[in-house]
Amino acid sequence: MTTKAKTKKRVSACTINFEPVGRRGGCQKNESLLACARQLGVGISSICGGQGTCHACKVQVISGSVSKPTPNEYKTFTAQELKEGWRLACQTYPTSDCKLNVPAESMTTPQRLQVEGLEAKVSPEPPTHAYHLKMKAPSLSAPQADADRLLNTLNQRHKLQCTRVDIDVLRIISERLRSWKWECQAIVRNDEVIAILPPKSHQLGLAIDLGTTKIAGYLMNLNNGRTLAAKGAMNPQISYGEDIVSRINRVIKSPDEGVLLQKLAVQAINELCSDLCAEAGGKPEEIVEAVVVGNTAMHHLFLHLPVKQLALSPFVPAVSRALEVKARDLGLSIAHGAYVHLLPNIAGFVGADHVAMLLATEVMQTERPIVALDIGTNTEISLVSNGEVTTVSCASGPAFEGGHIKYGMRAATGAIERLRIDDDKIQYQTIDGAPPVGICGSGILDALSQLYLAKVIDESGRIMNRHPRVRNYQGQHEFILVSREERKGKPAITITQHDVRELQLAKAAIRSGIQVLLEACGCAEDDIKQVIIAGAFGTYIDISSAVAIGMLPPLPLNRFRQVGNAAGMGAKLALISRASRAEARVITSKVKYIELASVPNFQATFVQASYLGRYRIKDGRREKLNHGD
Amino acid sequence: MTTKAKTKKRVSACTINFEPVGRRGGCQKNESLLACARQLGVGISSICGGQGTCHACKVQVISGSVSKPTPNEYKTFTAQELKEGWRLACQTYPTSDCKLNVPAESMTTPQRLQVEGLEAKVSPEPPTHAYHLKMKAPSLSAPQADADRLLNTLNQRHKLQCTRVDIDVLRIISERLRSWKWECQAIVRNDEVIAILPPKSHQLGLAIDLGTTKIAGYLMNLNNGRTLAAKGAMNPQISYGEDIVSRINRVIKSPDEGVLLQKLAVQAINELCSDLCAEAGGKPEEIVEAVVVGNTAMHHLFLHLPVKQLALSPFVPAVSRALEVKARDLGLSIAHGAYVHLLPNIAGFVGADHVAMLLATEVMQTERPIVALDIGTNTEISLVSNGEVTTVSCASGPAFEGGHIKYGMRAATGAIERLRIDDDKIQYQTIDGAPPVGICGSGILDALSQLYLAKVIDESGRIMNRHPRVRNYQGQHEFILVSREERKGKPAITITQHDVRELQLAKAAIRSGIQVLLEACGCAEDDIKQVIIAGAFGTYIDISSAVAIGMLPPLPLNRFRQVGNAAGMGAKLALISRASRAEARVITSKVKYIELASVPNFQATFVQASYLGRYRIKDGRREKLNHGD
Repeated sequence: MTTKAKTKKRVSACTINFEPVGRRGGCQKNESLLACARQLGVGISSICGGQGTCHACKVQVISGSVSKPTPNEYKTFTAQELKEGWRLACQTYPTSDCKLNVPAESMTTPQRLQVEGLEAKVSPEPPTHAYHLKMKAPSLSAPQADADRLLNTLNQRHKLQCTRVDIDVLRIISERLRSWKWECQAIVRNDEVIAILPPKSHQLGLAIDLGTTKIAGYLMNLNNGRTLAAKGAMNPQISYGEDIVSRINRVIKSPDEGVLLQKLAVQAINELCSDLCAEAGGKPEEIVEAVVVGNTAMHHLFLHLPVKQLALSPFVPAVSRALEVKARDLGLSIAHGAYVHLLPNIAGFVGADHVAMLLATEVMQTERPIVALDIGTNTEISLVSNGEVTTVSCASGPAFEGGHIKYGMRAATGAIERLRIDDDKIQYQTIDGAPPVGICGSGILDALSQLYLAKVIDESGRIMNRHPRVRNYQGQHEFILVSREERKGKPAITITQHDVRELQLAKAAIRSGIQVLLEACGCAEDDIKQVIIAGAFGTYIDISSAVAIGMLPPLPLNRFRQVGNAAGMGAKLALISRASRAEARVITSKVKYIELASVPNFQATFVQASYLGRYRIKDGRREKLNHGD
Repeated sequence: MTTKAKTKKRVSACTINFEPVGRRGGCQKNESLLACARQLGVGISSICGGQGTCHACKVQVISGSVSKPTPNEYKTFTAQELKEGWRLACQTYPTSDCKLNVPAESMTTPQRLQVEGLEAKVSPEPPTHAYHLKMKAPSLSAPQADADRLLNTLNQRHKLQCTRVDIDVLRIISERLRSWKWECQAIVRNDEVIAILPPKSHQLGLAIDLGTTKIAGYLMNLNNGRTLAAKGAMNPQISYGEDIVSRINRVIKSPDEGVLLQKLAVQAINELCSDLCAEAGGKPEEIVEAVVVGNTAMHHLFLHLPVKQLALSPFVPAVSRALEVKARDLGLSIAHGAYVHLLPNIAGFVGADHVAMLLATEVMQTERPIVALDIGTNTEISLVSNGEVTTVSCASGPAFEGGHIKYGMRAATGAIERLRIDDDKIQYQTIDGAPPVGICGSGILDALSQLYLAKVIDESGRIMNRHPRVRNYQGQHEFILVSREERKGKPAITITQHDVRELQLAKAAIRSGIQVLLEACGCAEDDIKQVIIAGAFGTYIDISSAVAIGMLPPLPLNRFRQVGNAAGMGAKLALISRASRAEARVITSKVKYIELASVPNFQATFVQASYLGRYRIKDGRREKLNHGD
């Protein structure tokens, strides 16, 4: 009976979506959220074994209905928290499909977040400058106001022409100068004192790459340009929409959501900022400048700018040029009068993160054509040649983030990240070597390529029914990567026909984008000197897999360069160097943006690009290549 | 029995202080706050006759304890309002001494608030400029961002070099430009677009004189410099301290009070602003620039700057120079990116309101000496001669605002404002001709002068016991201005020996301040070409009374000039003219401030100045003058 119960097929009463890890699956009747998470391999912490006493399994119900709070939960949460959906996963039973936010502190292992990338090569020339000051204390015969005393000392000693002190600095100046015995560092930006710090403090800067899914943060020493700490975090907006279009739609429907999404991003950055400071032994109030890059939608959501016009043709940003905004106007907790610099956007779907990537990869210095792309839900691609930049934006969709893929998930513990098929044997590697729970982007790409090379899938993407691991399940073919037996009774991890179609759409978007650029610039594929692949997903993929399925053009592998988080690197450059900011403006001014919707025959190109295999596209036709070509 | 009860002496159980009208007095046992107000002549509205049903008598208990709320009050107020001390005066019985805030809407008649003054004579040259713009709508072939489109059009059409759009303007730009069909007015300030308005809107400005007691507001048309509306309001901070020192002390004790006081001032200005707009047919979002003047403490409280160092020797402001702050950083609800300009302060106790007064009265254009003073709780006095300004600040105290005077009150309905003594007959005039309930500043000054001229008081300030209206009451002499019979059974209104001493201190402060200035500049009294008296109190006083008691020097009356609210006028000038702002900076730079505490022999001068009568002070000695001198 017990054995029978254990092995009987699970009947899913409802589907639970665990964010930000991106794992979703069925939850049986009378199964708690914690039990469901365990079944799906989502590592939610639990110390007390589901008694509701350790409070380690806190989750937030974003949508869907669940059982009423238990007395334990009433003790654990405030009324406000309960109202916001906070619950203990072990005490809560879903009564409908649910979307949950599992905060980092409730996870047993952190998600893999890429922050590494190129290292900076510019000499520091930040927009802020720290001046050491020593003043005389005021007296009845010299009762000059505190701020005037500071400005006069500053201007006289250092031959400056400062005229302003930030209002928030004025609010603390009297107490601080007295407690520091009239000695301080004044941080000057243009003609304004934006911060005062104790005599021997650091002058720190914060660079942020605000991605749709992940946030990368870098704490820099502005004096020497060195990176003091780097850290990633999930973008908590994910719980309110996995891709930017769904977030924009929420904001269009309810303006309050715009306020919420802005707050979530800022809270996450503030937390990241505290963590970075703790790691490097600095203080958030020593951060006197910040640079934030992101795609245009993230840029707008972060600044709480209007997004409706971004989502409607002709897809116009509220603003493209570089901005400088007081950090406090955004809710960022750094130095009192510090500014946030935002690099310029290129278009509605090509943002400052792409500019930052072009800046970091120094593509402008080359003569021969370079293709630079950052693969994500939206993939921006530039072809740079002779200092001219042509850019497209492709809707590559969430497949590479694990979205719309049956066993897809983000790069977290237990995700299959590498995969080889050797006849009927499957070899795979999971993140942290944990038992497999799903498959993340790089694994999905490998799977597609291996299935194609093993002739399980034909060039049109159809799964053939001649491999022992192919089965027909719920009306479609699927390929079993890890069987129920291999998972000790848990459901098999498979790649379905539907998954393959999703991946074809994604890879066709990228390949056809490259093709449009080549045709617009009159280049042949072979002319491409280098293909620069930036971003987390781009770092982990096997390039040969990407070429094998025709996502990338069939060039020698040594022409590909995986550069990691180049957008973050560009943010760092812009943070420490005014010259880099000027360079970013120059890059933006040289960009010719092509709206794919307006390209003739784009659909035909897209259809060709959806085929698997190594091929060239010429005059709208596919030329298949042999392995040696 | 009934008659006996009516005429029996009132036994005051506790003292109630009604603010902002400034009337205080005893409350009998079992007497409601409304009944007490009526006894004291404070005009609180009541329609239902004390049944608790009309809700016209709302008051706020600031300190002290009162009876528990009645069911009627639970129905009238929210829990939060009750927590904040809001009550119905007719339902509430004090159980200790109390301080109440009676809001304007609960008063039967408004308080007299002076807003009139000199009229502007400068040609408008405001710091903002409105440009009319017509743009093309974006398209797929011209998908330029909204803000970039606006800036480019602006810079090309009007040959400008604008580089910035305020972040709050960016937040509305997309929706507004579309709803206005790509036509708008852009309000430009330096290189920044601070507002966008519909094609045919006004460009308005707001000038505020933020007094310790009263706030005067002016709505101006920035294009032609005309005053569209003027209005006064009480400063709601009064309920939290009548004078600046007590407010500063509250903030020093509890920083939260600083937040509260700032909010109160801003709320009052926002309400004033709405009223002014309603009167003139404008909208707060059309107000694209504001100027605020006030004394240094009010300036600091309004900006939420530190005040502790203001209260301690050497009495140093946090900042003196002129400031420009985004209105939103202060909570002011005007145009999205509008700035508030704050004129410079001179010293800890000589603020921007004094600079504004010097600006408005054009004293810098004269060669012969001019004395300019603004009488208040603190009286700032400048002696201007040959373009040099010497300034002192005198602690004249609250006596002229009715403070520390037994029957003193502010200038509201029923206050005695003029008074003549003709033997044993008293003639007086009350505000609005209402039955007398107390005596306000100008009446107090008249009373002192008349009592001195009638020889009821000698030159040392002693009340002599030979006038029929002098009585000994509770251990001191007092002079009966209005008897119990004349008040139909209500307590007599009197001037006590203690009142006279308070007035002597107040008037000595002013006279000795003038004396210090004359000595510092080597001037004789007769050299003074003009004495300019600004401010509400100064407008209503009888100059001859002020001269008779020796508060002002014995000059011919035609050398005195009462200019009304000159500080408000100065604020208006600074609002509409950049040249006036520059002039204010020049004035401030020319001021030599003398700290009275550091003047040798100041005490001796002060003692001489406390005597009543017409006299000159020379070498620390008083020279009495005959009436003809």
